[in-house]
Amino acid sequence: MSRIYDRVALIGLGLIASSMGHAMKRQGLAGGIVGHARSAETRAAALELGFVDRVCNTAAEAVAGADLVVLATPVGVMAEVAAEIGPHLAPGATLTDVGSVKQAVIDAVQPHLPDGVHFIPGHPLAGTEHSGPRSGFASLFRNRWWLFTPLPDTDPAALARLRTLCEAMEANVDVMDPAHHDLVLAVVSHTPHLIAYTMVGVADHLRRVSQSEVIKYSASGFRDFTRIAASDPVMWRDVFLTNKEATLDILGRFTEELFVLQRAIRMGDGAALHDYFTRTRAIRRGIIEAGQDTDAPDFGRTKIE
Amino acid sequence: MSRIYDRVALIGLGLIASSMGHAMKRQGLAGGIVGHARSAETRAAALELGFVDRVCNTAAEAVAGADLVVLATPVGVMAEVAAEIGPHLAPGATLTDVGSVKQAVIDAVQPHLPDGVHFIPGHPLAGTEHSGPRSGFASLFRNRWWLFTPLPDTDPAALARLRTLCEAMEANVDVMDPAHHDLVLAVVSHTPHLIAYTMVGVADHLRRVSQSEVIKYSASGFRDFTRIAASDPVMWRDVFLTNKEATLDILGRFTEELFVLQRAIRMGDGAALHDYFTRTRAIRRGIIEAGQDTDAPDFGRTKIE
Repeated sequence: MSRIYDRVALIGLGLIASSMGHAMKRQGLAGGIVGHARSAETRAAALELGFVDRVCNTAAEAVAGADLVVLATPVGVMAEVAAEIGPHLAPGATLTDVGSVKQAVIDAVQPHLPDGVHFIPGHPLAGTEHSGPRSGFASLFRNRWWLFTPLPDTDPAALARLRTLCEAMEANVDVMDPAHHDLVLAVVSHTPHLIAYTMVGVADHLRRVSQSEVIKYSASGFRDFTRIAASDPVMWRDVFLTNKEATLDILGRFTEELFVLQRAIRMGDGAALHDYFTRTRAIRRGIIEAGQDTDAPDFGRTKIE
Repeated sequence: MSRIYDRVALIGLGLIASSMGHAMKRQGLAGGIVGHARSAETRAAALELGFVDRVCNTAAEAVAGADLVVLATPVGVMAEVAAEIGPHLAPGATLTDVGSVKQAVIDAVQPHLPDGVHFIPGHPLAGTEHSGPRSGFASLFRNRWWLFTPLPDTDPAALARLRTLCEAMEANVDVMDPAHHDLVLAVVSHTPHLIAYTMVGVADHLRRVSQSEVIKYSASGFRDFTRIAASDPVMWRDVFLTNKEATLDILGRFTEELFVLQRAIRMGDGAALHDYFTRTRAIRRGIIEAGQDTDAPDFGRTKIE
């Protein structure tokens, strides 16, 4: 693969940025990669790991002369970073971000950008429960979705170039409206994460059930919840603070439904439970028939030994 | 491995019974295996698949002369089956079950048993989202827990023999009190399943988010929820009807916690969210340090392509 950008600036050097750095290095997709993180320790780690060519002490320095700038900080500090780098962005540069919410990022970042900079908000649906510069790896984006939510005036050529970069990192690219993105993610990711956090918190309170028992016997289901609930606290705090409306909407629907099922249990209404579970099973069947997942037993997973 | 029981009767021929039949056949653990299911189609499938040697039209016939009887029906019909087979059980025979709840099974089954029969309630923590006689396979129990909740007067020799059978089917055996079993399972399995059913039901209601989008973008989290929510509706109905108190207890704690987090989101209380997520992350770390799970990225899973 040949070079797609001459100089890439990674602002924030955690799981996503380090994985991008490794992936771009491996394939020679960038002429040079400059990094910035607030913590000197993180900057030193990035240099040591070699997924950047050099680091800068400020974000403003790092973006100077870059034709691609990637905002990979927690969503909560993006406004501040955008205000800092705005005056230093090169004319014609592309600015993208990797935040898990999109409308809030647009509201936070766009006011600080000069004319002539192509701002293309993005979100790679990839991650692990680990964080920090040492957690990245080049194949993180393989076969994962990378969603972009372009603005009405986004330059098609700038978008096409960014798409080429993501596809070279083995991601599948899709484009959608920011508000729709935030609703879809509230359903498939944000609310399920909150639920997993909650369930792990509940187990922690139960002194009658020892922690070791909870883990020992949680062959499926709960063990995955604990993995999800180990994800980066700052990132998830910012997700819920910035995708508040969609998350509260989905949570409201969730608790309504849960109360209906809880009441059926309390009243001993077996028919209602059976109907509900039959309906959700049909949804799953539809998914398999649509070729969106395998029908392999054991929930399609290799067992964790 | 040599023969452990001379004649095993499987009452109910679904996922668990068929897996037991295959596992016992493969290793020659039973002199003969007799099966009974209510449906003629299921009985014919069991014979065709060969995990039983013969089938009987009634449970009473099937248990005659068996030294091990396995109740593998939904929990909701176990009282009725026990009443039918009680008078036909051989003196000295062992009766076990594979139900997901234990106190309710004991209450339902024990009154119908004659003296001299060893009743040892059991629960293999193994399964897939599939059900029926064609879904079983011999390695289902490999490295899974098989819990027994013996009664105060359980014969240690009968328990030891049953344990040998389960270990020969590659399961790990543990013994606990029935009420404790039901509470632990409410935490690690029953409540998480109800939550997964609920979340899938919510997604189904959201016409603004197409089903294909929900699946397409659900790399982690939600897709597992749909698998869980595809499990056998009759089995799960009976779980919630018969482990009502423990499930309602855990559900009550869950909704309390969820409301605390929901309020933090609504009020924009980032500190509370950050504290909560940091605490659950520490729980996960404790699990890894205890050697109970791997620290591999991507949630320890092989990707579903």
